[in-house]
Amino acid sequence: MFSFEIAAEDGKARAGRITTAHGVIETPAFVPVATQATVRAVSGDDLEQIGTQAIIANAYHLHLMPGEEVIRKMGGLHRFIGWPKPIITDSGGFQIFSLGAAKEHGVGKIAPIFPQDRNRGGHLGSKRRKRLVKIDEGGVDFISYLDGSKHRFTPESVTQLEGKLGADIILILDECTSPLHDYEYTRAAMERTHRWTVRALEEYRRISGTDQAIFGIVQGGAYRDLREKSAEFIGSRAFHGFAIGGSLGKSKEEMYQVLEWTLPLLSHERPRHLLGIGTVEDIFDVVSRGIDLFDCVAPTRMARSGTVFVRGAEAYRIHLLNAKYREDRQPIDESCSCQICNRYSKAYLRHLFAARELTAERLATIHNLYFMEKMMEQIRGAIKTGKFEALKKEWIG
Amino acid sequence: MFSFEIAAEDGKARAGRITTAHGVIETPAFVPVATQATVRAVSGDDLEQIGTQAIIANAYHLHLMPGEEVIRKMGGLHRFIGWPKPIITDSGGFQIFSLGAAKEHGVGKIAPIFPQDRNRGGHLGSKRRKRLVKIDEGGVDFISYLDGSKHRFTPESVTQLEGKLGADIILILDECTSPLHDYEYTRAAMERTHRWTVRALEEYRRISGTDQAIFGIVQGGAYRDLREKSAEFIGSRAFHGFAIGGSLGKSKEEMYQVLEWTLPLLSHERPRHLLGIGTVEDIFDVVSRGIDLFDCVAPTRMARSGTVFVRGAEAYRIHLLNAKYREDRQPIDESCSCQICNRYSKAYLRHLFAARELTAERLATIHNLYFMEKMMEQIRGAIKTGKFEALKKEWIG
Repeated sequence: MFSFEIAAEDGKARAGRITTAHGVIETPAFVPVATQATVRAVSGDDLEQIGTQAIIANAYHLHLMPGEEVIRKMGGLHRFIGWPKPIITDSGGFQIFSLGAAKEHGVGKIAPIFPQDRNRGGHLGSKRRKRLVKIDEGGVDFISYLDGSKHRFTPESVTQLEGKLGADIILILDECTSPLHDYEYTRAAMERTHRWTVRALEEYRRISGTDQAIFGIVQGGAYRDLREKSAEFIGSRAFHGFAIGGSLGKSKEEMYQVLEWTLPLLSHERPRHLLGIGTVEDIFDVVSRGIDLFDCVAPTRMARSGTVFVRGAEAYRIHLLNAKYREDRQPIDESCSCQICNRYSKAYLRHLFAARELTAERLATIHNLYFMEKMMEQIRGAIKTGKFEALKKEWIG
Repeated sequence: MFSFEIAAEDGKARAGRITTAHGVIETPAFVPVATQATVRAVSGDDLEQIGTQAIIANAYHLHLMPGEEVIRKMGGLHRFIGWPKPIITDSGGFQIFSLGAAKEHGVGKIAPIFPQDRNRGGHLGSKRRKRLVKIDEGGVDFISYLDGSKHRFTPESVTQLEGKLGADIILILDECTSPLHDYEYTRAAMERTHRWTVRALEEYRRISGTDQAIFGIVQGGAYRDLREKSAEFIGSRAFHGFAIGGSLGKSKEEMYQVLEWTLPLLSHERPRHLLGIGTVEDIFDVVSRGIDLFDCVAPTRMARSGTVFVRGAEAYRIHLLNAKYREDRQPIDESCSCQICNRYSKAYLRHLFAARELTAERLATIHNLYFMEKMMEQIRGAIKTGKFEALKKEWIG
């Protein structure tokens, strides 16, 4: 069960509805990242109160821990985590390559960047990747960042793995290239990802029920001809929707170009998910270009370090550990109606961060996710009333 | 505003009501520890849902961070932390001595035992304590475990400090002795604590409004004559209630003896708080001897390491990281109706602990605190219906 209806268009921006077996996602939607089957620091109850519509988990991480068989036996991801609403699983292509390469540097040395919340878009040269992550035409051999154990992913095995997890939307296995990759490497990786895509789709048809939708991933780095080639190839397959992955270039301008090359070649009627995007500015910009879904660790990761969103602030955020909040009786944002702003002062939140209390990370995460939900609500409303450009101007000038 | 009424007695056990300016505490009550102005890993909302009646914060920790002046300016502890119900502040006598001495060992070496949740009842010899914690008749000089800064506490200054924090019930500054202290040291420390007590009470009368109650602390270690002497001395002062602190001996039997020596000498009409007690067995035993209030970090600290309470289990607890829960679809306790048991399986909670997700610590804490609240409810009900001994037998045999 999967459908996508466009309710309104405003320029290239679209407001729509994705219907899945576990309910509806009103788009454009921000999808919080739940790498290890939880959005870090918050619970399902919290997300329901916030109004989160869907979460995105990570097949790579869940394969390593607790393992897809455990989750399958527990009745699938929704039942395992007690989350009845839509779930997306990312294949973990990015994680395999970035964590594999990271391992090579020596776990101890870069361990602090290891755990959880791997984002897409790392900067790892192909040379390093070759040793601990071995790619061949069939798939990829890699080593667990947890215990050094050996694993092999193929397009088929990842499709099976995601089948067992049982998310509403699954992403195929891709090789995720970085801005440091040259044209030749990016092209070769893209073409292999295309061949993997055909195999993943075949495996999907063989094993999957009608409750699970599958999204292809457009690759090609920041190279115009590669992005166009990839968008044509992926866009012509029978996917329920499309993700745009890999390197989005080295600047915002390059990212916008990637979208402008890619999106016209993807079916207008199917949803488009931009992987790893989530600043306020980026969101307005990518929505204005026709993106329907995006996920990003930034709002939750920033929250855990004490950085919280405030509409009027520089770069839409403040850092709670700033000394000036020591005696600040005001909530994070006076205009916010989240449960945190209703109850706590900046002074108290600052104290909790200074005292390294776990609660601090949760409270800040709730605020940031609520901020994102309310902003997305405004965006959807504005598109429906033809006022998206006005709203964008109001927010980001 | 402070009153205590005994509603029912069953043997020596009593069920009553403490009324404070911030509401009622039905006794006997377990008071969760909120050392740094939060019960670790949970929020005020969580505590309200759990049914927590009161929390106990720590004047020593709050003096060091964020400082009593900050809290006073923020409108006092209740407003600062967004908790409208009763609050107790412990003076932090124990923390001064134990953390001061700990510092002497070299912070790095024992840093893991430093942060948060200091319990009363450490095991620190008097020799070590002499260097970084200097006690004289007037008070105590100590060094912050956070930054090495120098501080001085006197009975008067701590009473002022607690006045600024604004808890409903404050405990006076005491010197907390350990089971390793000999008779002579314990006696000398107790006598000094008595002299400090007189000064604290005078300062309290000078500065305090009627909304703050003050409890004295009985010391004397596990020595009968000292406990009796201390109970007589403290018991004869105009305190609203009494706490029993310091060493409770080296075994449960010695602890029960301490209570049997002490409690008959304290006014029957005033509440008695036993500091630092909180296992299931201990609770039934101390309630049966006439204790009305107790606090303990064990339920919350154990929760954070994955140890959760289950009535039928060995020692009333299970460890969620145990491999046998890997595929366990059942909640922690099928008979429990907390929000965690309603929503999550042991398999999922185990995964969250294994994956070191912060959420794990919160979910387990909620369960353990709920378990304690429900057990205390049963205890109060049983005392009121003359069935406390039967309930005790049912629980601990």
